[in-house]
Amino acid sequence: MDMTKTPLLDRIQYPSDLRKLEINELKQVCDELRQLIIDELADHPGHLGANLGTIELTVALHYTMQTPEDLLVWDVGHQAYAHKILTGRKASFSTNRQFKGISGFPHPAESSYDTFVSGHASNSISASLGMSIATRLEKKNRLVAAIIGDGSMSGGLAFEGLNNTSVHPNDLLIILNDNHMSIDRNVGGLSEYLVKMTTSKHYNSFRWKTYLMLKRLGIIDENRKTRLLRFGNSLKALLTNQHNLFEGLNIRYLGPVDGHDVEGLVKVLKDIKDMKGPKLLHVCTVKGKGFAPAEQDATQWHAPGRFDKNTGKILTKAKGKDEPLKFQDVFGHTLVELAERNPSIVGITPAMPTGCCMNLMMERFPERAFDVGIAEGHAVTFSGGLASQGLIPYCNIYSSFAQRAYDNVIHDLAIQKLPVVLCLDRAGLVGEDGPTHHGVFDIPSLRCVPNLILSSPIDEHELRNLMFTAQLKPQGPFVIRYPRGNGFLTDWRNPMEEIPIGKGVCLREGKDIALLCIGPVGKTAEQVAEDLHNEGVSVALYNMRFVKPLDTELLHTIGQRFNKVVTIENGALMGGFGSAILEFFCEQGYMSTIKRLGIPDHFIEHGSLADLHALCGIDANGIKQTVLDLLKR
Amino acid sequence: MDMTKTPLLDRIQYPSDLRKLEINELKQVCDELRQLIIDELADHPGHLGANLGTIELTVALHYTMQTPEDLLVWDVGHQAYAHKILTGRKASFSTNRQFKGISGFPHPAESSYDTFVSGHASNSISASLGMSIATRLEKKNRLVAAIIGDGSMSGGLAFEGLNNTSVHPNDLLIILNDNHMSIDRNVGGLSEYLVKMTTSKHYNSFRWKTYLMLKRLGIIDENRKTRLLRFGNSLKALLTNQHNLFEGLNIRYLGPVDGHDVEGLVKVLKDIKDMKGPKLLHVCTVKGKGFAPAEQDATQWHAPGRFDKNTGKILTKAKGKDEPLKFQDVFGHTLVELAERNPSIVGITPAMPTGCCMNLMMERFPERAFDVGIAEGHAVTFSGGLASQGLIPYCNIYSSFAQRAYDNVIHDLAIQKLPVVLCLDRAGLVGEDGPTHHGVFDIPSLRCVPNLILSSPIDEHELRNLMFTAQLKPQGPFVIRYPRGNGFLTDWRNPMEEIPIGKGVCLREGKDIALLCIGPVGKTAEQVAEDLHNEGVSVALYNMRFVKPLDTELLHTIGQRFNKVVTIENGALMGGFGSAILEFFCEQGYMSTIKRLGIPDHFIEHGSLADLHALCGIDANGIKQTVLDLLKR
Repeated sequence: MDMTKTPLLDRIQYPSDLRKLEINELKQVCDELRQLIIDELADHPGHLGANLGTIELTVALHYTMQTPEDLLVWDVGHQAYAHKILTGRKASFSTNRQFKGISGFPHPAESSYDTFVSGHASNSISASLGMSIATRLEKKNRLVAAIIGDGSMSGGLAFEGLNNTSVHPNDLLIILNDNHMSIDRNVGGLSEYLVKMTTSKHYNSFRWKTYLMLKRLGIIDENRKTRLLRFGNSLKALLTNQHNLFEGLNIRYLGPVDGHDVEGLVKVLKDIKDMKGPKLLHVCTVKGKGFAPAEQDATQWHAPGRFDKNTGKILTKAKGKDEPLKFQDVFGHTLVELAERNPSIVGITPAMPTGCCMNLMMERFPERAFDVGIAEGHAVTFSGGLASQGLIPYCNIYSSFAQRAYDNVIHDLAIQKLPVVLCLDRAGLVGEDGPTHHGVFDIPSLRCVPNLILSSPIDEHELRNLMFTAQLKPQGPFVIRYPRGNGFLTDWRNPMEEIPIGKGVCLREGKDIALLCIGPVGKTAEQVAEDLHNEGVSVALYNMRFVKPLDTELLHTIGQRFNKVVTIENGALMGGFGSAILEFFCEQGYMSTIKRLGIPDHFIEHGSLADLHALCGIDANGIKQTVLDLLKR
Repeated sequence: MDMTKTPLLDRIQYPSDLRKLEINELKQVCDELRQLIIDELADHPGHLGANLGTIELTVALHYTMQTPEDLLVWDVGHQAYAHKILTGRKASFSTNRQFKGISGFPHPAESSYDTFVSGHASNSISASLGMSIATRLEKKNRLVAAIIGDGSMSGGLAFEGLNNTSVHPNDLLIILNDNHMSIDRNVGGLSEYLVKMTTSKHYNSFRWKTYLMLKRLGIIDENRKTRLLRFGNSLKALLTNQHNLFEGLNIRYLGPVDGHDVEGLVKVLKDIKDMKGPKLLHVCTVKGKGFAPAEQDATQWHAPGRFDKNTGKILTKAKGKDEPLKFQDVFGHTLVELAERNPSIVGITPAMPTGCCMNLMMERFPERAFDVGIAEGHAVTFSGGLASQGLIPYCNIYSSFAQRAYDNVIHDLAIQKLPVVLCLDRAGLVGEDGPTHHGVFDIPSLRCVPNLILSSPIDEHELRNLMFTAQLKPQGPFVIRYPRGNGFLTDWRNPMEEIPIGKGVCLREGKDIALLCIGPVGKTAEQVAEDLHNEGVSVALYNMRFVKPLDTELLHTIGQRFNKVVTIENGALMGGFGSAILEFFCEQGYMSTIKRLGIPDHFIEHGSLADLHALCGIDANGIKQTVLDLLKR
């Protein structure tokens, strides 16, 4: 980056430097930030759209508030790049999302300006309410602001937070960053409601301007304000008996205001930051603001990968004819194929139609595909309702986000054996998104749930076969977990076949040691087995396909034949697939030595998949070393 | 029960019989139902208050709708007793909540009139929306109604459901049963909002009466209605730019109406049941209606136990001086004791202040105790926010309800090591409430979460010591799981002592076999060990106290000394405490034979704790038999 391009930014290391600038210099700071983010992200992929939308808001917040003493809580931290750059991480910003580099999300361990972890949506109101109430209890004098997108507002957790905001005394400022988007389009009545409010803003605007005028004239103070506002509310109530949705929840509503007018934002924030009681400032922004291609197609530019910043062309590596598709693409095409044959099939996604490729189903069968917004719990329970009437829902949720629906899987599906096909996308390590997004707890948490089938395919053909099998004789929740990213096959569209439920398969006979795998890590193991074969070690390889029910017949064979066994999984070791094998061997009295490979008991950082697999010892080298060590014992 | 008391009810086996009655006979049906419920519950404890409140609504719904073709979805099924009695279960109602008797909650496996499982709050809108959309997709002509209490409305899942109600075409009827209560008082802005709406109902009432009048006069039909309503909305919008909270979410709002006027309810339901599109009918009821003591103290009469129906006296078995308190009482008193010494301690409960005894903290330190309503996810994330500012939150949630907060524990606490003390009340089997309420998945689902301490006390002293220890050197989430019901000690108030984290204790030396226990089931094992000693078997007994971190030093000793080991836990076997022991023994190469006792892989029915412990083999007999069998091998 040419340093002369960012003369003002060069003087800013921390927000205290920003606060030394004149207000009329802030626009240039924003322009420089915007250019820096575009320049960096062109080469080092990240979340572009959301971050271009929050630049002015970020600058205005740090300019007005005394960070880090005052607390900013970013909801879904991938809107916080400008925040990172302004808070001591400008120099390291080029390492964003890379192994050992800075994280793509806020994390308190990384900076004292990052107040809370925010990889999953909708947690900022609850967390910041806790901070705001703690501030009062500890008699401190700090401001707390949550910045939450309208997409995150569809999450139940955000509503629970809002609903509690007025219960105990606090001075929380909620900033609603309204860009009419989550990653894909926004969903739900609330979203439409925000549009209506934005377009019919006269009433609030009038009332609020009156307040500001009275305040500037010194006519109003905090005590008087309460009385005046109460009068205003009574008047309104008298006229209409209706309330604003937020004011219905006893939260003072302010706005909407232009989220790209940085000076305007500073003035507004100065005016309201010391208002007592909980309040919500409605700020309208544009996703991708200032970069024309991103403004035009917000979904594509949410996280575009590398791009040409001059032409605005996304530099997707052209896929060779012989290059495999992503598991996601295979899922999407296969779902449509199944839905064409079976009219009972419907599709459900919580706000990830593009990410999981449910958009193919939405295009082909719009009336049979449902994007329910950021609302994982609802996605599962709604699927349960559909299944209770004889439909076969394929509910696709990223594994780490499905943690939000844990009770729904147990209470709303498993207890009543409702046949929902729960497709856990991005299971296992996910790479650059890091610890909040790794889908590593699904096996231990779901394996203990009765009535549930838990499977993982080794490749795209098996993914298709499992998806096919799941709708043949619906009998309860059927979980299929598969990873993010490219598969292995170019001829992925196999004729689909039924897989007997709970049956694994021997991929390679051998006599020295047995490797038992679940999921695509079996492909790595296959390569290791071949390697070792060439070195004179005879390795048997089993693709178990099901964590639950286990293939007990196959396991008896293995228990009888092998006294050395390695289990391999891309998931948490504690209570996972390997433990299931261990439990079986113990129950049946097999005394084989078992070594379990998988994710160890700590949160795994962000980085490339190759780096992280190596870190956890589930890459080819790690597996091979484990086998050799075990054979030496 | 004297059969002559219920002449009308005697003629009703199923709702089709009810529908043969004249509308003016319905009041008597309600009276008879009320008497029957009071009579039965006086002897066989159950949820009294909620059920007395929904009698008229239940009768009106079954009278108006063609159940079971039309679908009723009860939110939190403990309001569904009248529904059970009217749908073929009058004769078996006296077996309610008993082992092998009918369930206290709706369950599709029990009756075709029960459409969905509903032990946990807030799931009815999502589930019924699924049913309603399925009805449209399958071109069936059935009505779907969800009946949800205002308490359940504070749950995020209910909001996610509401927010999605207007997205896809459906004709769902949501009935808001508004009694201003969950189990304790209601919490949140929404709750206050409902009160305001109820007291200022003129506008809606006017608009709605106009609609009904036009409809009766034949002036309006469904097509015209849409236009007229749209006009009405425009008019309203023009006047105010404000919307009703529900109409803000694009749901037609109707009401409020008197929920105890059964004829009125029938008329209303007839008028609205064929209205197209999603709609919400606001019905005001009184918890405990028709039984004076219950009307006066809804919290106490939520589930009062046995009572004298004539005097209205609750027949609590008088506690002898030497009878132990409940674990819940000990928790409540101990929290206050700790909070008196440590000003950083705060308490959080999602709607269960009485059930978990957080009410003691709320009385003693009202500003430091927070009832957040039915909102488990928020309870945990809010606790995280408090902890991030240096406070030490004791967040108490029933184990099965904490499944709702699984992601919050991982994402909002564990990743950033926030020191929240998560007290999981009612862990293990809970008895009469059955499968939706058994807290048996907490160990497997939480054991795999890094940075987390997972403990369970054997008795009240250890509960107090663990609670004491948790606030000494806060270092991350600290889980303490303990069961529902009475403890063991009369001198429960011990001077509290630190327990070294991750340290278990040998309760009894022995040489033939080792029993490893977690939680109060250790007390049962103690008795078994004593028994076996008298029969000449030498049993060693270990109270491990921590599932995570494990006491590896103690386990090495055990692994070296014993070749027969039994693990005992009141929780799911798959991936649980026993599996943790198994993993350690396997990793360390100990070849002991291990038998794991706990909850097997199916949902355990309802019944007394004694019945259920025996069923799972974790009562004294079961444990003894397992030990003897293992010694014989």
